[in-house]
Parts: sequence; C-alpha cells; structure tokens
Amino acid sequence: MIELVGLDADDTLWHNEPLYTRRRERFHDLLARYEPEGVLDDRLYEVELRNLQHFGYGVKGFVLSMIETAIEITGGRLESADVRTIIDWGRDMLASPTELLDGVGEALEALGKQLPMILVTKGDLLDQQSKLARSGLGHHFKGIEIVSEKDARAYTNVMARYGVPPECFVMVGNSLRSDILPAIEAGAHAVYVPYEMSWIHERVLPEALTDVHFHEIPHMRDLPGLLDRLSNIRVTPSNDPAKRT
Amino acid sequence: MIELVGLDADDTLWHNEPLYTRRRERFHDLLARYEPEGVLDDRLYEVELRNLQHFGYGVKGFVLSMIETAIEITGGRLESADVRTIIDWGRDMLASPTELLDGVGEALEALGKQLPMILVTKGDLLDQQSKLARSGLGHHFKGIEIVSEKDARAYTNVMARYGVPPECFVMVGNSLRSDILPAIEAGAHAVYVPYEMSWIHERVLPEALTDVHFHEIPHMRDLPGLLDRLSNIRVTPSNDPAKRT
Repeated sequence: MIELVGLDADDTLWHNEPLYTRRRERFHDLLARYEPEGVLDDRLYEVELRNLQHFGYGVKGFVLSMIETAIEITGGRLESADVRTIIDWGRDMLASPTELLDGVGEALEALGKQLPMILVTKGDLLDQQSKLARSGLGHHFKGIEIVSEKDARAYTNVMARYGVPPECFVMVGNSLRSDILPAIEAGAHAVYVPYEMSWIHERVLPEALTDVHFHEIPHMRDLPGLLDRLSNIRVTPSNDPAKRT
Repeated sequence: MIELVGLDADDTLWHNEPLYTRRRERFHDLLARYEPEGVLDDRLYEVELRNLQHFGYGVKGFVLSMIETAIEITGGRLESADVRTIIDWGRDMLASPTELLDGVGEALEALGKQLPMILVTKGDLLDQQSKLARSGLGHHFKGIEIVSEKDARAYTNVMARYGVPPECFVMVGNSLRSDILPAIEAGAHAVYVPYEMSWIHERVLPEALTDVHFHEIPHMRDLPGLLDRLSNIRVTPSNDPAKRT
C-alpha cells in the first residue's frame, strides 16, 4: 500500500539539463580563441566533481567550476571580461523560465486525486524554491524537501519526517544515482522515468537494478496508472483485475 | 507557555561573520596593487545586495560577488590568478572549523532539559549542514530548518511544520532583521542575543523593537533562565517566585 509519493524535480518535472548543456557549448565557444590544451569537457567534469564536496549541486557551483576550468585550461591567460560572461550565464540560468516536461501538469493533477505528493530535490535551496514557484506546480505538494545529497539516509530522514514506513513510500525520478538506487537502499519503491539526456555523474549501470521495488516507465503520464496498480487503492474487495490496470 | 525553541546558527551558536570580515580585509590587500577606484567596501556591498536575489546568502554568492566587484573596480584589469585566489578563499571558508561561541555548549545542554529545540538558519544548504556536523551540536536538535530567506512566512511555515502555535514558539538569534522582527511579525516570541559584529545588511533600527514579545539577553548562557521564566515550566502551583529565576 503506497501512502506517499516523492517526486524529483529537475528533468523529472521540468527541463534542467539542457540549461547546462547549452552553457557547456557556449563555454567551448568562449574559450576557442585561447586554443585551450586538453579536452575541455573532461577537464570541466573533473573540476565539477572535485568541487561537489565544497560547493554542492546547482548553478553557483557550476559557474565557479567553469571559471576554475577556464583559468586552468588557458594557463592563466583568461581575461576578466570572460569571467564576467560566465557569471552572467549563471544569473541567466537562475532566471530562466521553468519549462515543464510534456504531460507533467496532467499527471500531477491525476496523481493528486490518488495520493499525497512531496517534492524531493537536491541543489541550491534558493534556486530550487524559485524554480518551483515559477513552475506553478507548488500547490500539488504536501511538502518540499530540498536536500544537499540524495543518499539512502536522506530518504530515510524524509520518510521519518512524514511518518511513512519505507514500504509505503515511492520515489519517482530520472536519476538512477540520486532518485532510484538510494530510495531502494532505504527500503522504498522507486519509479525510473528516464530523461532524454542526463549529466554523466547521474548515470549508473542498469545491472544494479534487479530489485523488486524497481519500476520503469517511459513517461510521467504513465505514473498515475502504475501507482494505481502499486498502491491497490482502486482494488475492489473482489480484486477485479479489470480495475487494476 | 513555550513549547519549542528556534535557534539561529551563524553568530548565535558559532562564529561566522569574522570569516567574512577576514576575507574582506584580504580582498583589500589583493586589489591594492590595481589602485582601485572608489570605496571598495561600498562597491562590494552594492554588488552583494544586487546578487542576493540571484545567488542567495552564503559563501558561494559572496565569492561570486567579490569576483564581480574586483572586475568592476579594476576596470577589467583583474588577473586570473587573483580570481583563482578568491575562489580558493571560498573553499577555505567552507572548510574552516566551526568555532562555537563561548558558553553555547553548556547553554544548549541546559536548554535541552527544558524544551525541544530546532535550528533555523538561512544560507547555503550544504554549507550549513556541514557546519552543523562539524559543530558537534547536531544531537541537541529535534529538527534542522534551512530556509532561503528568514521572513515572517518562513517562520509561519516552520511553526506549522512542528504543529506549534506562534505564541508557543520562541526564536533566538543575533540578527534583528532575520531572527527577531520576522518572528515577532509571525506572532512568536523573540530573544535577541547581539553578536560583537554584524553584517551591515542585518542591522535594523532598535526603535522597531517595542513589541512585548521582544527580549534581549547579553549572552547565550542567559537563555535557559529567560526561557524558564517565559515558559513557566518550573512554576509550582504556589507560584513560588524563588523557583522562577
């Protein structure tokens, strides 16, 4: 019996990775005239990983990592006008419109009639709150949980906060690393809704996904039907299979 | 009757502003050789204020504001080695030891025997969680509430989350702007514990403080006694005044 649904936000409810991908492309263009040494994408990813423990997830850490990478890869020749451009990108990213994924509004509308929902997201607090406000989806959620890292302990804390045992909680998201594996590790159910593109850091091997609590759907619009089956909330005493689909 | 105590963290439980003050001084030294035009402190404060809505509170926003100010005030002559130095300061700040204010450990120990406590702080999520972990104070708190802005609505949400009516909640902190005025506006009690230095942004005129819910104590070690009196939890049926101090 499912009692509470946790939903990831970035690339589950609204597009996020394209914002970063577009800036990675412009980062290439910006640095082209310096003829940087080494593979820019690899260097940026290394710096981002190194900085995660200090700066965490989100736009500000990304901006700082781009600046550091640019300084390193240009051997210190980077001009301050280009530093400024990178900081401007950060402000633009933080102010970009929140574009919902196709069908998300309807899916949440339908889900809201079945089960209470909470948002569980990682990243910058202000950035995530601001995106949620701009999304117009806030009224669907019983609570907003913004965590610095989505590990099993974070999910355990969230479930405890709402007084829901793990077997009654289901986490829905596009990241195997952040939404699926740690939720399953914490004893909950997990529904994987792949996104068209994922940051390399969020990818894990699919072999890890043999747990009976794991489910995959191609699209958020398939979620109400899946949860209907999982939670049995529409199962009649006669257990009519026609009502379970 | 007080049921729940909210405690601010930065400059209430541990020293924080000195970290920033030291970097502001080093920022002066770093830029001296460019012979910057204008008053550096004023320019930095302007840039910080302008960036608050985008970057929020905390070290990362401070670092980005220092870089922007440095580029502006040097007319774009800033060298990338100095940008790097500023980013290194950010990492240093995020990794600095959490230094407790004098007497805080004992005060929390005593308070914990009286009333449940929560931490209510603003700023970077990861940074605040990490400081709390390093402080060794985490076990005192029933909950940790990290918010992007401490306004009346944020306090109302926090009180609702714990099911405590405003008249049974007391917020304790060093910032009139963030801890005291919005808590009183939300109908709660507030205890002001001034810190030796405050960021100019957190200062407000003391005339605003005429509310009967406002209390001021010189030191955290005076908090258990004050709450004892406020919450009446030690008042005997005979209302013995000797037991109220």
